[in-house]
Amino acid sequence: MSGYKKLLERARQLHHLYSAVALMEWDLETYMPKGGVDSRSEAIAFLSRRLHENFISKEMGELIENALADPDLTEAQRKNVLIMKEDYEKAKKLPPEFVEEFSKTTSKAFVVWQEAKHKSDFSLFKPYLAKIVELNIEKANLLGWEKHPYDALLSEYDKSATTELVEKVFSTLKEQFVDFVQDLLDRENIDDSFLRKYYDKQKQWEFTVFVLKKLGYPFDKGRMDYSEHPFTIGINIGDVRITTKANEYLLGDMLLSSVHEMGHALYDLGLPTEAPGTPMSESTSLSIHESQSRFWENYIARSLPFWEHFYTALQGFFHEHLSDVSLWKFYRALNKVSRCPIRIQSDELTYHFHIMIRYELEKALIERRLTVDDLPHEWNTRYKAYLGIDIKNDAEGVLQDVHWSHGTIGYFPTYSLGTFYGAQFLFAMERDIPELWQLVREGNFTPIHQWLQKNIWSHGKLLTSEEIAKFATGEGLNVHYFIQYARNKYLPIYEGELETV
Amino acid sequence: MSGYKKLLERARQLHHLYSAVALMEWDLETYMPKGGVDSRSEAIAFLSRRLHENFISKEMGELIENALADPDLTEAQRKNVLIMKEDYEKAKKLPPEFVEEFSKTTSKAFVVWQEAKHKSDFSLFKPYLAKIVELNIEKANLLGWEKHPYDALLSEYDKSATTELVEKVFSTLKEQFVDFVQDLLDRENIDDSFLRKYYDKQKQWEFTVFVLKKLGYPFDKGRMDYSEHPFTIGINIGDVRITTKANEYLLGDMLLSSVHEMGHALYDLGLPTEAPGTPMSESTSLSIHESQSRFWENYIARSLPFWEHFYTALQGFFHEHLSDVSLWKFYRALNKVSRCPIRIQSDELTYHFHIMIRYELEKALIERRLTVDDLPHEWNTRYKAYLGIDIKNDAEGVLQDVHWSHGTIGYFPTYSLGTFYGAQFLFAMERDIPELWQLVREGNFTPIHQWLQKNIWSHGKLLTSEEIAKFATGEGLNVHYFIQYARNKYLPIYEGELETV
Repeated sequence: MSGYKKLLERARQLHHLYSAVALMEWDLETYMPKGGVDSRSEAIAFLSRRLHENFISKEMGELIENALADPDLTEAQRKNVLIMKEDYEKAKKLPPEFVEEFSKTTSKAFVVWQEAKHKSDFSLFKPYLAKIVELNIEKANLLGWEKHPYDALLSEYDKSATTELVEKVFSTLKEQFVDFVQDLLDRENIDDSFLRKYYDKQKQWEFTVFVLKKLGYPFDKGRMDYSEHPFTIGINIGDVRITTKANEYLLGDMLLSSVHEMGHALYDLGLPTEAPGTPMSESTSLSIHESQSRFWENYIARSLPFWEHFYTALQGFFHEHLSDVSLWKFYRALNKVSRCPIRIQSDELTYHFHIMIRYELEKALIERRLTVDDLPHEWNTRYKAYLGIDIKNDAEGVLQDVHWSHGTIGYFPTYSLGTFYGAQFLFAMERDIPELWQLVREGNFTPIHQWLQKNIWSHGKLLTSEEIAKFATGEGLNVHYFIQYARNKYLPIYEGELETV
Repeated sequence: MSGYKKLLERARQLHHLYSAVALMEWDLETYMPKGGVDSRSEAIAFLSRRLHENFISKEMGELIENALADPDLTEAQRKNVLIMKEDYEKAKKLPPEFVEEFSKTTSKAFVVWQEAKHKSDFSLFKPYLAKIVELNIEKANLLGWEKHPYDALLSEYDKSATTELVEKVFSTLKEQFVDFVQDLLDRENIDDSFLRKYYDKQKQWEFTVFVLKKLGYPFDKGRMDYSEHPFTIGINIGDVRITTKANEYLLGDMLLSSVHEMGHALYDLGLPTEAPGTPMSESTSLSIHESQSRFWENYIARSLPFWEHFYTALQGFFHEHLSDVSLWKFYRALNKVSRCPIRIQSDELTYHFHIMIRYELEKALIERRLTVDDLPHEWNTRYKAYLGIDIKNDAEGVLQDVHWSHGTIGYFPTYSLGTFYGAQFLFAMERDIPELWQLVREGNFTPIHQWLQKNIWSHGKLLTSEEIAKFATGEGLNVHYFIQYARNKYLPIYEGELETV
């Protein structure tokens, strides 16, 4: 067997182990009886550790070297091995004792965070967060960095993301976007009260499944179930599942969150299948992942042409509340911008204020310009400044997100980067498919799949986020597309120009 | 760490791997989208092989020896290690190449069997079955045997089962049971047509869940889902799941099959939890497993006192069909004995004719007294002799069961042995709990759990089937209890003595 084939075989074996862990996690969040929780957590921890140990083993290093020495490698195969080597060497930089300590700390921190949030008392979580910050600084140093320690953390989630890039993007937003949104927030001329009536869970489920099928989520290669928090999980080739959550007093919530997850799932399903467990068959970054989920959620499923296609069906499902609501009124309500203290409940514009706040605080913590003691005050001050909100307590403030308790710092910015990549893809897609919105209006989403397949999904991890952006759009991340998108969409919504639709 | 503790830790790790495989199998049969089937089969095969390799590794042998040298072992711990050593040495007798060939043959054979059954054409499956018989003869020789090669095959599923024991039990049945059942078959005086009306699936499901809860299946340590074929699977400590199947034109089918699976699940849940992955925490044999499932299914859920408790509730669920059907009429119908060519659809008495036929054929194949060419003829002749049935085709004849395609020979007898152990347990339980049937009539099943826990479940694999029978009843397997049970129950049913109930 050739060196490359041997490497593929070993990668496939590790992928089977990964697949077992993924299924265990899916089951834990969906159907597992609660009596299994202790054994399950132990099993997941054991198999994950085993997976990591196998990946950073000497044997894997040798397999990689032998594959590189394989004389018959194609260019793509060579690149695949080189990126795998990069990942391997990076993974080896974190000694097992460090990984162990990190994992022990965050296991505890997660439990304490839950309690602290429940009691709305940041002081309980504070010592754990302080430790997590220290571990992240150590992690950055172990991984190595040139310009900024935060770069090392970012690169765990997106190899081509840098502090410089994030800084540039957010400062552009501050100059050209924040005022615009704050102005919209002051208008308060949209009525969305009809979205907050009672909408039967089962009917919402059926409408959601109907839409997902039309959008092209293949239910023979995935499934949808309920879970506490919606997520997407790739169990294996041909099996990528999503979950959703019911909110019977907010129409649109289940649908949009399911479409979001579907965007993630389509990306995973669209990755090349020939080399499971190697970069070629993996997604490139969390940013690009988020570009896909938000593309479908915001740019498609919150668009007017989308609802020109689907609104009558929605009215049919919920005629008791919607038969007198016009498409335009519905569309405006669905896109209402509002002052919301909770990130995951916020609209597509103010969402980025939430991310900017987290990014500023994370960076300051890593630079040691702030300590965890300063956090609640700094958090609340920023919410007042950006959103005009008085944060009432720690639970709706600094304790709202789970991420820090998991030890992830440098993760939040990928949500915004992804959204902005998505907007940039949208403009390129409009250029490449001039009839795009007419197709959406007709319920034909196949050309979108084809465009994403060719431009995004097919690259696996052989291109970075920035390289994918250049391939698909001709340039690296440019936040102006998003700003332009926001103006094009929200001025008519707020100035009622299309009232006649 | 002591030698014993080290062994336990390693066993627990392998148990995590086992747990992953179990979950993958459960998911495959319940919720997996069909797109995942290839990757899933590959993943299960890989992890199972890895599990086997780890178990028979030199390292495991050393851990066992070191544990045996541990000076602080209790008697139970020593026994635990000794039985593990026995299992280890037995597993090592099958060389990896043999296991590989066996597994490849049966993977193919299973696919071919499905097609052959679909086309009702034994000739397609015949060469595969011939190969499977040869492999089983080889397996028997590799494992080693003294009196009969079939002993080696039986012992894979029940260590204390022997050809001699099975022979003795079945010849007693032939003398004292077969005529009795054939006589019942001739009477044809029971009307069960009302069981074959339309019974809504969802209502059957709800009634079944209601009964399982009352019987004591802990839904916080398990769950029930639909699958093609009902099964029970222990995923982990505190997580043992069952599945069921809907038959909307046969009342009782879903309930009884669910109660059967629950019997398996209660056994797994009742095993000692302190040493997962070692004999102490494992079930002892398929026979004892079947003794538990059939205990609940036949001896409890087909009993008159059980229905004295539950029949009114069942009538409430299905009053349109049952409000005019008396308890006695329902009870007789549920226990009607009939000439059925299909094992899994047969009643609790003729069931053993099906097993005897399979056993006779298997033994003759292993002894080379028969070849696979003779099978259809031999099968059909026996069905005529035992049950008076003319087998119409291979699909309802020699191809009906999946077992041989999986390579399992020596498995069928455990179904009968289990049933007979179960009857023996029932008599012992009646002796130990004189008010047993009054308790059942009142819907109090706790004393049954307690008796099974103490007498059966708590031993794990530290006692064999025969040793458990001796512990619980004072003697090894004695089929007379079952024969006595059958007479006590079926004479009144067929002679209408209790018509007034």
